[in-house]
Amino acid sequence: MALQNDLTRRLGIEHPIIQAPMAGGTTTPELVAAVSNSGGLGSIGAGYMAPDAIAEAIDRTRALTNRPFAVNLFIPGAFSINTDAIEQANARLDRFRDELAIERPEPPTRYAPPFDDQFEVVAQAGVAVFSFTFGQLDAARIARLQAAGTVVIGTATTVAEARALAHEGVDMIVAQGSEAGGHRGTFLGTFEQALIGTMALVPQVVDAVDVPVIASGGIMDGRGLAAATALGAQAAQMGSAFLTCRESGAKPAHKKALLDAGDRATVVTRAFSGKPARGLANRFITEMAPLEPELPDYPVQNAWTKDIRAAAGNTEDDAFMSLWAGQAAALSRDRSAAECVETMMAEYAQCLARLHHS
Amino acid sequence: MALQNDLTRRLGIEHPIIQAPMAGGTTTPELVAAVSNSGGLGSIGAGYMAPDAIAEAIDRTRALTNRPFAVNLFIPGAFSINTDAIEQANARLDRFRDELAIERPEPPTRYAPPFDDQFEVVAQAGVAVFSFTFGQLDAARIARLQAAGTVVIGTATTVAEARALAHEGVDMIVAQGSEAGGHRGTFLGTFEQALIGTMALVPQVVDAVDVPVIASGGIMDGRGLAAATALGAQAAQMGSAFLTCRESGAKPAHKKALLDAGDRATVVTRAFSGKPARGLANRFITEMAPLEPELPDYPVQNAWTKDIRAAAGNTEDDAFMSLWAGQAAALSRDRSAAECVETMMAEYAQCLARLHHS
Repeated sequence: MALQNDLTRRLGIEHPIIQAPMAGGTTTPELVAAVSNSGGLGSIGAGYMAPDAIAEAIDRTRALTNRPFAVNLFIPGAFSINTDAIEQANARLDRFRDELAIERPEPPTRYAPPFDDQFEVVAQAGVAVFSFTFGQLDAARIARLQAAGTVVIGTATTVAEARALAHEGVDMIVAQGSEAGGHRGTFLGTFEQALIGTMALVPQVVDAVDVPVIASGGIMDGRGLAAATALGAQAAQMGSAFLTCRESGAKPAHKKALLDAGDRATVVTRAFSGKPARGLANRFITEMAPLEPELPDYPVQNAWTKDIRAAAGNTEDDAFMSLWAGQAAALSRDRSAAECVETMMAEYAQCLARLHHS
Repeated sequence: MALQNDLTRRLGIEHPIIQAPMAGGTTTPELVAAVSNSGGLGSIGAGYMAPDAIAEAIDRTRALTNRPFAVNLFIPGAFSINTDAIEQANARLDRFRDELAIERPEPPTRYAPPFDDQFEVVAQAGVAVFSFTFGQLDAARIARLQAAGTVVIGTATTVAEARALAHEGVDMIVAQGSEAGGHRGTFLGTFEQALIGTMALVPQVVDAVDVPVIASGGIMDGRGLAAATALGAQAAQMGSAFLTCRESGAKPAHKKALLDAGDRATVVTRAFSGKPARGLANRFITEMAPLEPELPDYPVQNAWTKDIRAAAGNTEDDAFMSLWAGQAAALSRDRSAAECVETMMAEYAQCLARLHHS
């Protein structure tokens, strides 16, 4: 069945399914294109990419699909560089480096890619959809993208953030519930108070803004998609559900950890990047936990753990990897992205038929 | 419209709506009976009640309704009585007592009502439904209740807890998502890792057990009820939605705080009772926060804050009250319990019609 609404018409997609923009290599051109070719919206998670890498990812994705897809960037925030905090974190990180047989690297020349240059690449590429997280894009840039025909999507974790994004002029808003895997998008208030479950967050955001709302957090199948639309969302954005797809670039040990998750708990941690993010618990998180309050800010901590994450990613041991996962990751399946989208829509139709006949 | 399923047939109710068993005076016989008379299932939150008070509450409720209702008890857990922790907490509590112009009371003669006696009253009363939280009821007692025709409902915050309850033989399971107001029902593992959003928890519990699942946490209206049933739950249990109803015994300042909640955040705190519970942030929680790690266990801390909560409840200031509230409490409305149930079912029907025609 097709499920058409303002959002699908505006995005030019067949199904109200958005593959979340997981940064760090998961959103290969193959994954993004497969989702879009299946009638959903693929998203390039470009937050960590250098500008020329973004241009290349867009070109490669365009070579694989004529359908709309999104590019996502991280809005930079203020951060401090505290050398004491860096040294204290590195003293602990060196013990992981020893286990991985790597040396502490030279200090990074920059902590994050230059946002202005990243943005310029995306704006000039004229992508169908631009989504952003970790903050507000200014009204002038939103208007520039919109004038070029790009749909602009912001990310909110609270009603106040949703209102602020709508005021700035975004076309649509992702409501990121506390179940969501990976980084929290929170940019106003405290992270703790912005851990609001999808069931509670979505209807309140729907009531608060006039633009279409996209539900994210804990949605893994057609039941979750139906629940999201019942709450008033016009689409669901899913990360974990696509992370284990065959086209995804997630490390094999990361995929395996999700597929085998069972009762393994997720936790919200600053240990990998300095910014709270949800992933499966492992040794790295547990052993860094006592240092959490004093860890360097994002993206400083992220830059200093890059070597460890890269070395760990080449092993089969998931003890030191960032195993980003939502709270329903145990429902993930090993399949292609096309199967994922098709199954979800079939389950959605079954779910509606069940509700209709009860 | 009616929505009938295994659960409604088993409970003998018309609508898949359960008023949560909020302990501490909220669930008056008038509220419980009004919910049951409206076709939902009212619940007496009897966890804090002395045995004779439970018998009286059951009698008074029965005088107001012939329909089924539930009685809920707290399963007692192990706790230690640490005099240093009690003295440290009381030193801080005395400053609140000064503001409320009350004296530190004598040490309580007991920290919680005798569970065996509470249970005996409920079992002998032959209530239609018995629900429990904070632990496992043993299989023998479950079987005794069932033999007398009582439906037994346990409360789980994780899939592992749901499996354990099903194994012990309960008839139905409440899946309490992290959005839920009031006390967390967690009894296996850590509270932090058991803060799982309703959207993620419900489908995983539905897949894990063979008994009907009741969704709770963040559900406030017909949209939430539809979302819960889409996820596979057969009913929704709601606290905040009924707390502000006219028949509820919640303190006026508590009701007002929910009705006026707006963007006021909820937090999970041990400050009032020693057990993590979600409520609207206020001065008491904020000022007790530094002591949280060392607070006495539940129910010791609960007993020592009783005088403060009672005195605060008689004022119009909500600074020292336990303002239990779920994460969607801002959607609460001032109305009767009958209006609450009827509106929810009307919204549910509208929601399904919207989904069916999209």
